[in-house]
Amino acid sequence: MFHHSSKLQYEVRVDTPDPQFAKFLQQAIGGVEGEIRVAMQYFFQAMGARGDSKYRDLLMMTATEELSHIEFLGHAVALNLEGAPVTVQEEAAKDPVVNAIMGGANPRHILSSGLSAMPVNSNGVPFDMSHVYATGNLAADMMANAMAEGSGRVLASRLYNMTDDAGMKDMLSFLIARDTMHQQQWLAVIEELGGMESVLPIPNSTSEKHEATDHSYYFLNTSMDEPTPEGRWSSGPSLDGRSEFSVRTPEPLGQKPDLGKARKNSGAQKEQM
Amino acid sequence: MFHHSSKLQYEVRVDTPDPQFAKFLQQAIGGVEGEIRVAMQYFFQAMGARGDSKYRDLLMMTATEELSHIEFLGHAVALNLEGAPVTVQEEAAKDPVVNAIMGGANPRHILSSGLSAMPVNSNGVPFDMSHVYATGNLAADMMANAMAEGSGRVLASRLYNMTDDAGMKDMLSFLIARDTMHQQQWLAVIEELGGMESVLPIPNSTSEKHEATDHSYYFLNTSMDEPTPEGRWSSGPSLDGRSEFSVRTPEPLGQKPDLGKARKNSGAQKEQM
Amino acid sequence: MFHHSSKLQYEVRVDTPDPQFAKFLQQAIGGVEGEIRVAMQYFFQAMGARGDSKYRDLLMMTATEELSHIEFLGHAVALNLEGAPVTVQEEAAKDPVVNAIMGGANPRHILSSGLSAMPVNSNGVPFDMSHVYATGNLAADMMANAMAEGSGRVLASRLYNMTDDAGMKDMLSFLIARDTMHQQQWLAVIEELGGMESVLPIPNSTSEKHEATDHSYYFLNTSMDEPTPEGRWSSGPSLDGRSEFSVRTPEPLGQKPDLGKARKNSGAQKEQM
Amino acid sequence: MFHHSSKLQYEVRVDTPDPQFAKFLQQAIGGVEGEIRVAMQYFFQAMGARGDSKYRDLLMMTATEELSHIEFLGHAVALNLEGAPVTVQEEAAKDPVVNAIMGGANPRHILSSGLSAMPVNSNGVPFDMSHVYATGNLAADMMANAMAEGSGRVLASRLYNMTDDAGMKDMLSFLIARDTMHQQQWLAVIEELGGMESVLPIPNSTSEKHEATDHSYYFLNTSMDEPTPEGRWSSGPSLDGRSEFSVRTPEPLGQKPDLGKARKNSGAQKEQM
Amino acid sequence: MFHHSSKLQYEVRVDTPDPQFAKFLQQAIGGVEGEIRVAMQYFFQAMGARGDSKYRDLLMMTATEELSHIEFLGHAVALNLEGAPVTVQEEAAKDPVVNAIMGGANPRHILSSGLSAMPVNSNGVPFDMSHVYATGNLAADMMANAMAEGSGRVLASRLYNMTDDAGMKDMLSFLIARDTMHQQQWLAVIEELGGMESVLPIPNSTSEKHEATDHSYYFLNTSMDEPTPEGRWSSGPSLDGRSEFSVRTPEPLGQKPDLGKARKNSGAQKEQM
Amino acid sequence: MFHHSSKLQYEVRVDTPDPQFAKFLQQAIGGVEGEIRVAMQYFFQAMGARGDSKYRDLLMMTATEELSHIEFLGHAVALNLEGAPVTVQEEAAKDPVVNAIMGGANPRHILSSGLSAMPVNSNGVPFDMSHVYATGNLAADMMANAMAEGSGRVLASRLYNMTDDAGMKDMLSFLIARDTMHQQQWLAVIEELGGMESVLPIPNSTSEKHEATDHSYYFLNTSMDEPTPEGRWSSGPSLDGRSEFSVRTPEPLGQKPDLGKARKNSGAQKEQM
Repeated sequence: MFHHSSKLQYEVRVDTPDPQFAKFLQQAIGGVEGEIRVAMQYFFQAMGARGDSKYRDLLMMTATEELSHIEFLGHAVALNLEGAPVTVQEEAAKDPVVNAIMGGANPRHILSSGLSAMPVNSNGVPFDMSHVYATGNLAADMMANAMAEGSGRVLASRLYNMTDDAGMKDMLSFLIARDTMHQQQWLAVIEELGGMESVLPIPNSTSEKHEATDHSYYFLNTSMDEPTPEGRWSSGPSLDGRSEFSVRTPEPLGQKPDLGKARKNSGAQKEQM
Repeated sequence: MFHHSSKLQYEVRVDTPDPQFAKFLQQAIGGVEGEIRVAMQYFFQAMGARGDSKYRDLLMMTATEELSHIEFLGHAVALNLEGAPVTVQEEAAKDPVVNAIMGGANPRHILSSGLSAMPVNSNGVPFDMSHVYATGNLAADMMANAMAEGSGRVLASRLYNMTDDAGMKDMLSFLIARDTMHQQQWLAVIEELGGMESVLPIPNSTSEKHEATDHSYYFLNTSMDEPTPEGRWSSGPSLDGRSEFSVRTPEPLGQKPDLGKARKNSGAQKEQM
Repeated sequence: MFHHSSKLQYEVRVDTPDPQFAKFLQQAIGGVEGEIRVAMQYFFQAMGARGDSKYRDLLMMTATEELSHIEFLGHAVALNLEGAPVTVQEEAAKDPVVNAIMGGANPRHILSSGLSAMPVNSNGVPFDMSHVYATGNLAADMMANAMAEGSGRVLASRLYNMTDDAGMKDMLSFLIARDTMHQQQWLAVIEELGGMESVLPIPNSTSEKHEATDHSYYFLNTSMDEPTPEGRWSSGPSLDGRSEFSVRTPEPLGQKPDLGKARKNSGAQKEQM
Repeated sequence: MFHHSSKLQYEVRVDTPDPQFAKFLQQAIGGVEGEIRVAMQYFFQAMGARGDSKYRDLLMMTATEELSHIEFLGHAVALNLEGAPVTVQEEAAKDPVVNAIMGGANPRHILSSGLSAMPVNSNGVPFDMSHVYATGNLAADMMANAMAEGSGRVLASRLYNMTDDAGMKDMLSFLIARDTMHQQQWLAVIEELGGMESVLPIPNSTSEKHEATDHSYYFLNTSMDEPTPEGRWSSGPSLDGRSEFSVRTPEPLGQKPDLGKARKNSGAQKEQM
Repeated sequence: MFHHSSKLQYEVRVDTPDPQFAKFLQQAIGGVEGEIRVAMQYFFQAMGARGDSKYRDLLMMTATEELSHIEFLGHAVALNLEGAPVTVQEEAAKDPVVNAIMGGANPRHILSSGLSAMPVNSNGVPFDMSHVYATGNLAADMMANAMAEGSGRVLASRLYNMTDDAGMKDMLSFLIARDTMHQQQWLAVIEELGGMESVLPIPNSTSEKHEATDHSYYFLNTSMDEPTPEGRWSSGPSLDGRSEFSVRTPEPLGQKPDLGKARKNSGAQKEQM
Repeated sequence: MFHHSSKLQYEVRVDTPDPQFAKFLQQAIGGVEGEIRVAMQYFFQAMGARGDSKYRDLLMMTATEELSHIEFLGHAVALNLEGAPVTVQEEAAKDPVVNAIMGGANPRHILSSGLSAMPVNSNGVPFDMSHVYATGNLAADMMANAMAEGSGRVLASRLYNMTDDAGMKDMLSFLIARDTMHQQQWLAVIEELGGMESVLPIPNSTSEKHEATDHSYYFLNTSMDEPTPEGRWSSGPSLDGRSEFSVRTPEPLGQKPDLGKARKNSGAQKEQM
């Protein structure tokens, strides 16, 4: 069950409101790299967690934190929209600089939300929940979470660079820090489970009898004119310790497909029948 | 530039066509765990690759392989649809067993595609390209790729369990094998880059001055009644070797948000102004 | 800031797991009538609330409750999936009754989530956040909220009818009850604001000079062969007390549109230029 | 059956074409607050209307009017795009003011539609029909309609403020007026049905035996540090006249969820089994 | 401006209601091959029509007819849902045959719409307006329209085969007929414009100076092991009469792409810089 | 099976990087008129091709070419983003001209992709695979393909006009040329099949007994005040040579719909029952 306290997890201060930066910040709320995604992803993973219950708790606790991130980012968007022109009669609207800025703003911040945050990305595309990855496999989910936090910290770093507002920089430095921790905590679960050698290949419960292991450890060079890029992946022991990496060039192992003629009444043209 | 040869990468054989399994297989084509996603993800990452060009090559070569996976899976869907009733007059359509199976089939395999594969998942939802994760950050992208292959192998393993057709099991065992390799190859890139200690936190190019490092290494226990789950993430050195993990309980660091009154002409109710 | 306690807001008991009902329940999680929608809608409205802060509090408190509804519904979905066949070798999978049920189940509950809830509706379509209505206008938002709870209680009532599991009926009777309260509380805000006469037309801050009031109070009968349906809307005082309702038949007040010729270089055919 | 006459429902005049305002106007066509939505919503509600046929007629008549609104708005978009530069060689394209305006225009108005309206919102996101709310419950549908018209009039008022073109202001004042009427007509249906006391809770046909009425009339204060906001919703008779409002603080009524171990063959990690 | 008359364009009779066929019929309403699409496509094309106004009229007249098709199909869906079980207590719901049928039904027809049509396809995926193709180029639009009607008639033919209800067959035979006419009428516009030789290449207003005509008339055989399929496209005069068809094999004309190093502050890993 | 060679199909040269043009170019990658669409459309049509296998080959060969188009366009986007400001401290970011340009750029090119191409259109909306039209009917598919290439060449022509970069113009002139060929090759298939008279109506395999041929050849004038536009479609022999075109005015052939009362337990209001 969820509860709320009235203060924000972190202080939000905007020294100079900037409607264009409000649009940029939306990426951190409703983008695929954003907070709605991680909040919902950890929440759904927690609800489906099977096995040691400590992982369920870990997931739910961080889901709860991410909801608080949405909250302070939402406030930051609203504060950046303070003073944006809502009528063309306003002085601001006549200023060419303001005009240029507004050309780069999200018109729906004025037209639809009335100067507040929306669950959309920086292009105004609404977040859709297909990005909530929750497989029921703990290791796959941890990878998905580390990935989400990795791209989240990339985004926060870029946003940090795109503003010179001291308040915004301070808030983003907090986000960057939390994304550091969250990347690590999900990867730490993998260490706790024995590290990559132990968790790979995901799922590690698939019977070897279900796997054509002849094909499990070669890199396929599908290029017609480039040599195989050499590295950890092209030779030496596999990461799961079960085999050795090698390289192959493509050799079709299958047939040329042929579906024959179309059936009567299947809606094809007569010439296909 | 791309080229094509006429044979499939792997042989596709369907002993007993099964329209319901055709629907299930769609998840491996147009699902978020599927092959369109990885083909396009590696392709777009390759096109945006900066730095050592061997990673670009690696990405493009595997993107090319994944296109071939779409191709043989598409053929498998079509073969599973052979014999599905296209009119209610057919004998098959009168059989209650067939009827039950058809209740579980995707009607668009008959109505829209004329008994062939579609770029949709097992619910008939079309794949959308927002799932192509490509950040321009090599480590973040490798995590995204390992994640995609992890969930892909989970899916292939589940599909393997949901059929007893020997041909389909054979094809899926090949997919399981390739997903093993692909998981490993992307994580091997991270090893090549120095391993987790070196690549974390992603992006490792963010200046420490941009990070509120006081907040970078504690786990936040947001629960009101559960103790912190203890593990690799709650104490000991951080994965990036920069600090020590600790635990905190939530303490709001910010203000209670207050946006004041609505502005004139902002479309709010008078009572808000 | 958000917090969590480990117990569910309401007890979830499933006497007889039913994978088809698990699919149905998804509508209450990820459908437009469901709990993700209201949780996020009230959350975003709260973040954008301007004017008397008690409405912000009201919204945030109920947003928090709705998150708890997602949580117990998610658990109900997982419990309904217990025992669903995950391989075709299982006894259950050979039972024709089970087969028929599975034909009506969501295959992604097996293939994608590993027997747990997903943020999708009963067709497997992911929730998308464009359904979070938050206008910045308090009265418009209250209408949106009452609407959401109205359709939510319609759904919960229908779900109640579609199960005979005592545990599920008990849980749904709780949801029906809370939807009763929530419908009323949002409409009570409108009463608090002076009732319909006072809040209409929304927004009540639009200057009458911006409205072509000649056209504000007539019902337009666009039918060529049906009389105007008579009722409260066709005569008598308007709900806002500003005028009288009347009826008109359509009379085009505008021109026949004509865009003239296409411009050179506009990508049209020569014949259009 | 539908018919068409060649003149627009209302005159459209654009004194000074403005490609940026063309983009803004798209919100009134393809936004969730726009005319495609209400046209289709009333149309689908009409097609599903059961009970007194006058409501079906009412819905279909207004659906028909809304189609005419799409039509004149579409013409307004096209007229605002007259003169937008279609090649960089044009004089207009070299003017910095035009450039700034074009930065704020929708590039697809040039690239995709050839200077005419599209069924998208002001961010260029296509309208999707999931926003057509039609429940089969008359009262729920009337609330949905009043909500749609409320947000529609908020939008039209904001658009009015964002232009100083006299023709556009005139057209928008007509839209504002029609939205006034439509808000009222749908709420008037509720009055016709006996008013809120009679229609609530929606659906009023749900048996009281299906409702845990102990939970139907209290406001749940989920905040840990804020008092309950007092108002019409916190005490006094409920709006449906069946009970009294009260307030409660959260007390989990359910269990701590526990799904146990993952099943063999379910695609989880071994450690979860 | 639009008008409505109360009778349907064509009679709808359902002899034996069938909820599964109701789901199938949805493809003809909200599928990409369906009536919402063509209605809206012709409507938006009409609104953007430039050049001879007779094409605008043609488009608007047929848009209006397609709205009437939505209407009678919507009625057909509702009639097919008559008698579908809305509670598990109903006799029908206990019948295994009904159960199997319901497994193949759309649960939202019961849960969301209350036994009536929805603007979704046969998978329950809502129609989205990105499928409204309207380019501002008359010939491109006519091709899009002929295509839409072609796929529409394919769908109607398949639906005809999937029912043995005499009423439904009668209604579908009408749809098949109208799709015949509509295919032809859009292609007849192309004949009116001078036929393919005259309208190709679309747009025919593109200056030849903007086209690398060396590359305009060869078929590129990208296969490594298949001969070029010979036909009208591989030799002989081009359809626009401007040249001769030929065949080439792929020869990269461009460079190997190289983006160099990532920039400082661009969010990449240090190793990319 | 697919293969790749390292050089681009066509040379990409950008003389003056332009982030706004990078955004425009996205339409040719991830727009409905773009290359992902045709690549995937031809690929899925090929996989479902039944009948003469030469059409399968034709489709697969051109699908392969279109993948190469994505590749060089993706490189063009990245090159146009060279030099775009990634921090507000950069000189470029302080330049008002740059600022105006950036207002018109896609912020996700900086925030999400790190200065490279994305699978989105020029509004930043991700491509979704519902636009892959593949019906299993050869003639319908050829029309869909010709349509796609028609709108693609319209787009390429408009992009050509919107840049004065010599490198970009050169690349676009190649795209224009290939779209010329591709339009023709798909229409040439129709000629190969006997031309329009032979392939129409699509599908030509539908039995005449399934068609209400009385309704197959008249144009329906649904306008109340406009004469029928006269042309090839209103009189003379039909394109399929089976009949004569004529004109009719609308006469409802169906009933006034009436669904009667709502059923008990269907979730409607009591007043509807």
